[in-house]
Amino acid sequence: MVLINGIETHSVPATDRALHYGDGLFETVAIAGGVPRRWERHLTRLADGCARLGIPQPDAALLHAEALRVCRGAERAVLKVIVTRGSGGGGCRPPAAPTPTRILALHAWPDYPACYASEGVRVRRCSTPLGCNPRLAGVKHLNRLEQVLARAEWSDADVPEGLMSDLHGHVIEGTMSNLFLVRDGTVVTPDLSECGVAGIVRGLVLERCAALGIATAVAQVGTRDLEAAEELFLTNSLIGIWPVRELDGRAYRPGPVSLRLARALASGEDSGAAA
Amino acid sequence: MVLINGIETHSVPATDRALHYGDGLFETVAIAGGVPRRWERHLTRLADGCARLGIPQPDAALLHAEALRVCRGAERAVLKVIVTRGSGGGGCRPPAAPTPTRILALHAWPDYPACYASEGVRVRRCSTPLGCNPRLAGVKHLNRLEQVLARAEWSDADVPEGLMSDLHGHVIEGTMSNLFLVRDGTVVTPDLSECGVAGIVRGLVLERCAALGIATAVAQVGTRDLEAAEELFLTNSLIGIWPVRELDGRAYRPGPVSLRLARALASGEDSGAAA
Repeated sequence: MVLINGIETHSVPATDRALHYGDGLFETVAIAGGVPRRWERHLTRLADGCARLGIPQPDAALLHAEALRVCRGAERAVLKVIVTRGSGGGGCRPPAAPTPTRILALHAWPDYPACYASEGVRVRRCSTPLGCNPRLAGVKHLNRLEQVLARAEWSDADVPEGLMSDLHGHVIEGTMSNLFLVRDGTVVTPDLSECGVAGIVRGLVLERCAALGIATAVAQVGTRDLEAAEELFLTNSLIGIWPVRELDGRAYRPGPVSLRLARALASGEDSGAAA
Repeated sequence: MVLINGIETHSVPATDRALHYGDGLFETVAIAGGVPRRWERHLTRLADGCARLGIPQPDAALLHAEALRVCRGAERAVLKVIVTRGSGGGGCRPPAAPTPTRILALHAWPDYPACYASEGVRVRRCSTPLGCNPRLAGVKHLNRLEQVLARAEWSDADVPEGLMSDLHGHVIEGTMSNLFLVRDGTVVTPDLSECGVAGIVRGLVLERCAALGIATAVAQVGTRDLEAAEELFLTNSLIGIWPVRELDGRAYRPGPVSLRLARALASGEDSGAAA
């Protein structure tokens, strides 16, 4: 089902600014038992993104009602929520009083092998760079050509993710996930002040670490840091935590910190959703 | 009129990748007497962009026929052509064999005051930076949030354009135009190997300079270069050439080189269209 501004339809006006400029935001929400998981966190990030881009924030109760309507009866699925600046304006100039478009669409749950979470995944490094722009960094906006080109670099079905770096060689994130390293007992994730998407589960992992007394650092990460890491893992709202077992031929093991955090994340869902 | 894949409609499938990722390209074409101007040049740039993004190139004859159909009877108008990667794929991963979407829409000719071309325009500098990415530089793609945010910085109706710089402070282009400087008889335009859009008229101006024996340079441009310039002008497919008469309070005059190039551009349209 696709719900656009509350109406069941499968099409969007050709004037919508998302189509012309990528002028909008999105959230990818896990659905379990007909209910969106971590809804409050997704809503908070969406509101932050609206503020960053100057898009009026959709009414929270309305969006929640629409999400529940789309997800009704879906045992295990994905809800994609897109909020655009709507139509109008003069060229790229936004309209003074935008009427945002809400697009809620239900998608099948991705059939990742169960061993990805337990045994880890093979990962590669992409050559498509991420451009830096503090004005957009962290925001889950609709300008995603860099990720599209990076994901087009490989087709090996056994490699579900690739890592992207900025033009300075700092490793930032995966094409669809955030990256974590474990070294000397500290959990490190790349700094996202110049580029990248601030993932919901990235934030949850940092919180879980604090609750568990695990040291964390948000830092610049380079190739040597990847090589020196004892553990690597990836996060997003659908996969939770995937340990990395291989990066371009270099072996890693799904280590104790990754697995401990995966357990903490799974057991703490409710508090996370309520936060 | 809006023509999507040859069909008159006003909506696009909600699955189109332009909506989700800005995964596509566009051209803004001036229409005069029902005919798209500089069509071959637009088509060439579109084909280059398709090659850069890995999108199959639309059939040239089909696209031309559709353009003529949309523009029929339009004395003075704007044709916007969008080519997207279509629907499908797994997340940001493109489909192996994409079926592109062609969107052709007719818009009213913008009612810019005639004095903009003869007396010049007031221009400002924007604070929203352009991110650098050689992988996308020059391409007229649909990821345009930077331009949207830059254009939202001001609402003075008497300031039709703002200049954008990259994070290193290099001045690159306007939100909807390319930039030229004239200094010591040389026509300079910013290098676009890291960011920016390679405009059709930008290319034409460089060609006209060569034909007229005017020296040109494609170079990094900084604030001091703007200050030291004898003339500044802006170009795009709709405005042609606009001299700059003021940049953030600093006065410029629509100088002889700008006006000579504007005349050369106007008189050489046919050869430009056939090139």
